[in-house]
Amino acid sequence: MSQYWSEVVHELTPYVPGEQPKIDRLIKLNANENPYPPSPEVIAAIQAANTGDLRLYPDVGSDTLRDTIAAYHGLQADQVFVGNSSDEVLAHTFQALLKHKLPLLFPDISYSFYPVYCGLYEINYHRVPLGADFRLNVEDYLQANGGIIFPNPNAPTGCLLGLDKIEFLLQHNRDSVVVVDEAYVDFGGKTAISLISRYPNLLVIHTLSKSRSLAGLRVGFAAGHPDLIGGLNRVKNSFNCYPLDKLAVAGAIASFADEVYFQQSCNAVIASRERLSSSLTELGFEVLPSAANFIFARHPQRDAQQLALALRASGIVVRHFKQERISDFLRISIGTDVECEALVSALKILLQA
Amino acid sequence: MSQYWSEVVHELTPYVPGEQPKIDRLIKLNANENPYPPSPEVIAAIQAANTGDLRLYPDVGSDTLRDTIAAYHGLQADQVFVGNSSDEVLAHTFQALLKHKLPLLFPDISYSFYPVYCGLYEINYHRVPLGADFRLNVEDYLQANGGIIFPNPNAPTGCLLGLDKIEFLLQHNRDSVVVVDEAYVDFGGKTAISLISRYPNLLVIHTLSKSRSLAGLRVGFAAGHPDLIGGLNRVKNSFNCYPLDKLAVAGAIASFADEVYFQQSCNAVIASRERLSSSLTELGFEVLPSAANFIFARHPQRDAQQLALALRASGIVVRHFKQERISDFLRISIGTDVECEALVSALKILLQA
Repeated sequence: MSQYWSEVVHELTPYVPGEQPKIDRLIKLNANENPYPPSPEVIAAIQAANTGDLRLYPDVGSDTLRDTIAAYHGLQADQVFVGNSSDEVLAHTFQALLKHKLPLLFPDISYSFYPVYCGLYEINYHRVPLGADFRLNVEDYLQANGGIIFPNPNAPTGCLLGLDKIEFLLQHNRDSVVVVDEAYVDFGGKTAISLISRYPNLLVIHTLSKSRSLAGLRVGFAAGHPDLIGGLNRVKNSFNCYPLDKLAVAGAIASFADEVYFQQSCNAVIASRERLSSSLTELGFEVLPSAANFIFARHPQRDAQQLALALRASGIVVRHFKQERISDFLRISIGTDVECEALVSALKILLQA
Repeated sequence: MSQYWSEVVHELTPYVPGEQPKIDRLIKLNANENPYPPSPEVIAAIQAANTGDLRLYPDVGSDTLRDTIAAYHGLQADQVFVGNSSDEVLAHTFQALLKHKLPLLFPDISYSFYPVYCGLYEINYHRVPLGADFRLNVEDYLQANGGIIFPNPNAPTGCLLGLDKIEFLLQHNRDSVVVVDEAYVDFGGKTAISLISRYPNLLVIHTLSKSRSLAGLRVGFAAGHPDLIGGLNRVKNSFNCYPLDKLAVAGAIASFADEVYFQQSCNAVIASRERLSSSLTELGFEVLPSAANFIFARHPQRDAQQLALALRASGIVVRHFKQERISDFLRISIGTDVECEALVSALKILLQA
């Protein structure tokens, strides 16, 4: 605390990201990173952009990248907003589109950054409980609101909401913005981007960190009606005009050009997820059905925090949330098959003890 | 305008950056970019970091970069905050440290992003007029305030305030934060970082865009008392935990390691600036004394906007601000000597016409 801080700073509870351990040779299944590297085309494009031209500012609108994303998803460029990771895109979205008199609605079990953004921008919010099965019931959102946001698939549960349910929500909620945060959608969901042309209040947010293996490059985007994108641009250009550096732009564009690699690496993660889910079920875990690059699992007889600590001692890091309703779960990112097998072996030993 | 926008968005007047013309072979003297490329060590470090490890998140605190900057400036790591360009660092500073009941003070002629940040965060501010000679008079700031911010050297004037004046300001203003925005200090000023140990309310902000030729990489930092840095971290970790990608971190670290290259390129710009100032003075321009990588000049008989348009038609882009008190000036970034000579030749022809 300091007399020099603005009032809002005193009240903040910042986000706590998954640990980035500074120890080598740990098996890192705690931050939903992709176990496979980005496409070789991405590395080549970055190398080509790594020249003395770094002395120049990037293009202020990242137009080439926006054109690329628009073409990939069948949109116009003015329906696309890009930012320094989907977290930055989310931050601008909260400030530009989700701060209203009525409360913002999001699930009680959800991306834990949402209430942090609300703190930063002093946004009134209400958490809507998921069902006992950790499913989102769209009927629960049919109440006066200043906006709705949820991840799909949800995090950290991995559960997917069908496009029909999202459309139901949009049909019954025309007066505020509905944000679908699709960070994990490429691992088994269908994107709501197809609904944008019919719902001017729909914003869909993506990241290149997970399915495109680019967590280290910091690129995310939003897709929606040009009016929503215009609001985001007004905030972005009042904050930092050039959030994407030249190398990030070059790498991101190349990623969208290598569709074969993208599909292969998503499919490999999906196949590993299904194998790991089966193995953990055999070990007695309850595993929620996941459409993401992680699974959410609990063991009826074991304390999840203890398990996480014991795994860490064996060199495997997973994520545990000390949060009501989910403190008996572990969130396990999908690694390579070798890493997943190491996890299963370690758990076998721990469960026998 | 849209019903879906938050209230603040309707009121925003976003920043307008220097144009990035999409035409080749223009001589670009409008955005204060460095005419020389970054150190070859920077390119090599980025190449070494451009690997499959981009799949992993960067270090959340950019600790290695913070350690590097701290060591370079004789600070501790907890006195350094890094961000995605000094614009992002400034944005967080406005929200975290400059929003108070009393008005924020800054010069009437100054970085035109400051009032934009005030709009974004609804900060009450008061513009303090520079003297008739475009100098900042520190006595004018001895009034109740919620913070003080100014660039040093100032932009777009290029005028430098001595460290003794800054210390006078700090001695007489203990209750609010004084931010010295040193984007251009390496071209002829002395950094106020040396005063940090004695003034807990001093924050100094730097960018790697100008003197380190890295506008395309987006890295800036702030130095100050750990309490101020702590406030910035609280806001940053409530906004976007990982604003610096792995490549930007690698390049920035390498830049600080190549001191010889850095000094040489700063000295080359300074020498060109002095030659260009003399040439323009000979052509009848009034040139303000500059300690930056640009000059601010007006011609007693010529309309500045007309000159800027005519230069553009000759393939040379400079910046003109349609703003009270300075609409008769051109801001000219220092290019290579060849570029500066091309400008002088073009102006000679225009002035003879």
